[in-house]
Amino acid sequence: MLSTAIAAHAPLRVPIELGDRSYNILIGASLIDDPASYEGLPKGGSALIVTNETVAPLYLARLQARLQARHRQVHSVVLPDGERHKEWGTLQKIFDALLAAGCDRKTVLYALGGGVVGDMTGFAAACFMRGVAFVQVPTTLLAQVDSSVGGKTGINHPLGKNMVGAFHQPLRVLCDLDVLRSLPTRELSAGLAEIIKYGPIADMAFFDWIESNIDALRRLDGHALARAVQRSCEIKAAVVSSDEREAGLRAILNFGHTFGHAIEAGMGYGAWLHGEAVGCGMVMAARLSQAVGLVDATLVDRIRRLVERAGLPVVAPVLDAHNNTQRYLELMRLDKKAEGGEIRFVLIDGPGKAVLRAVPDTVVAQVIAQSCQGA
Amino acid sequence: MLSTAIAAHAPLRVPIELGDRSYNILIGASLIDDPASYEGLPKGGSALIVTNETVAPLYLARLQARLQARHRQVHSVVLPDGERHKEWGTLQKIFDALLAAGCDRKTVLYALGGGVVGDMTGFAAACFMRGVAFVQVPTTLLAQVDSSVGGKTGINHPLGKNMVGAFHQPLRVLCDLDVLRSLPTRELSAGLAEIIKYGPIADMAFFDWIESNIDALRRLDGHALARAVQRSCEIKAAVVSSDEREAGLRAILNFGHTFGHAIEAGMGYGAWLHGEAVGCGMVMAARLSQAVGLVDATLVDRIRRLVERAGLPVVAPVLDAHNNTQRYLELMRLDKKAEGGEIRFVLIDGPGKAVLRAVPDTVVAQVIAQSCQGA
Repeated sequence: MLSTAIAAHAPLRVPIELGDRSYNILIGASLIDDPASYEGLPKGGSALIVTNETVAPLYLARLQARLQARHRQVHSVVLPDGERHKEWGTLQKIFDALLAAGCDRKTVLYALGGGVVGDMTGFAAACFMRGVAFVQVPTTLLAQVDSSVGGKTGINHPLGKNMVGAFHQPLRVLCDLDVLRSLPTRELSAGLAEIIKYGPIADMAFFDWIESNIDALRRLDGHALARAVQRSCEIKAAVVSSDEREAGLRAILNFGHTFGHAIEAGMGYGAWLHGEAVGCGMVMAARLSQAVGLVDATLVDRIRRLVERAGLPVVAPVLDAHNNTQRYLELMRLDKKAEGGEIRFVLIDGPGKAVLRAVPDTVVAQVIAQSCQGA
Repeated sequence: MLSTAIAAHAPLRVPIELGDRSYNILIGASLIDDPASYEGLPKGGSALIVTNETVAPLYLARLQARLQARHRQVHSVVLPDGERHKEWGTLQKIFDALLAAGCDRKTVLYALGGGVVGDMTGFAAACFMRGVAFVQVPTTLLAQVDSSVGGKTGINHPLGKNMVGAFHQPLRVLCDLDVLRSLPTRELSAGLAEIIKYGPIADMAFFDWIESNIDALRRLDGHALARAVQRSCEIKAAVVSSDEREAGLRAILNFGHTFGHAIEAGMGYGAWLHGEAVGCGMVMAARLSQAVGLVDATLVDRIRRLVERAGLPVVAPVLDAHNNTQRYLELMRLDKKAEGGEIRFVLIDGPGKAVLRAVPDTVVAQVIAQSCQGA
């Protein structure tokens, strides 16, 4: 079960410095089973593991066994799987489980699953009795690099993604690389999208490294995975700790997400994986950066090729056969970065640097048309 | 419409010191109509007024008129009235209104109504796009003294009151005393319960003052109301600013609430007003304080008489004809102050001082039996 390549190394650690809400991300092999992974976390009282129907048969018993050695009571709730379940009705199941089990303010929630489970568990923890502690055990590559840092939690609304939520930091994040072996290829690629993202906006040396290691990452090489997760978390942490509440700089992490969210909403949540939409959205955002004169075609082409090699779509979907551009614009105006109806895009301002700015609709329309044709 | 007694005075101001979340409570006549009440609040962008079907015909147009002078767009959403609507379905109407109107992170929410509207608007503001600003315009005496300070927001769950929520501070609270003239007598009394509360736990001179002014308060004398709201907010502010996240001291504000919440839950939310349940709960908590030897019968009797003179119930309801004591205990074990199934009560530790402690079930049972007989 264990990859010797991974197991040979002690866990990597990324400290997230946020004053009295500081925590550690641990990255390594077999972390779920290792008692050392839990050292320093609250014990005694009760714990509730939140997971989903796909992950439960694979890892729930292992996490339960470990937590039973630490907590008087270990409860669990198994949610349906998928982005379309990231809504109030599913969240309510967590509150139901907490209250039915007589949980209190000292209860610790464990999120065992991908980004949907992590976002909902974090939001439930933020709101239950106005705030209890939680630990992330992300089981997808996307969740390991994206949800581990930033404290964003929440659910979707029929009119927009992540429209209802809270900032709530975990006590710890356990990125167990072994669990990625059960991940479908498509979801692995989706995770690679968020890793690739950090290159153009923050670290072109890392982008070069990903170009050289993309095949190793896709075949789950332990060294490559650990390095990719660690560097992604480090970059995100550096951005987030300087801007915890998303006032400014943090918005650059949404590179590819403005187009990506429009794709997800327009196709219906779940049709495209979040990372697939972001992958395609990065190509569109790179083209937009070129269209306003910030980067040249060479960089756009490197991004498009790497996204494609990661197994991600690079041709944007048509969201409306009759009025595609308007549909994209309408959906993007709902983006949380929009202000007074004006869409603000994360653009590449030369390799390794990002900037947030508005772009005339006519220019955006050209990029949408070009991207939907796969030109 | 205006009471000259109230109008003759400039608004009183209670500053709430919470670092970068500090704000002011303004208390006075005709504040809704006075442009000065809004000075320094965000303007431009959009505002959403959240109110209910009872309050809307009385005050919505006046608040709209005032805000239209400050905001590009002023939207409103009218919720059904009553504690039983303090739940997700109703909260969702606020999110629906925000998103349908194209609101964004700069939108300011205005809560125009009683505690239910305030709690739900505050929670919607805490969660919408992970946090936007809001202003409280409480229209009940209870909301003016209770919801003005503390930043508690949230909704009920079928298994417990206020089980889902957040701490989220308003930008300002406008306590317009004129709006209390439209308040039903029963709701005025409910508000007096929370005012009386501050005497036994924190300020016996204030308790003496209320004893002397209870009739003036019940006939809505402007001077008396302004003083009562101001002093209540001051005491609550002193407690809350030293314990914003309810780690310890703040729990004393729940004097009467452990029994009160059991009454509310056991009777079905809305059967008794929150303040009525708290009024009766204070008499029960005073008796419990006497039963464990902390105060004498004289103080218990003064509290019982003042609660009665305020127009509040002093005989506890029977929640279960067959097993009343167990039903009370069971409901109280769901209280947020409970830990590991142990109920912790706010008791009076000598006049003007409160303490949080567990009490043996047998002693609690005696007090429940005594209180249900009105002995």
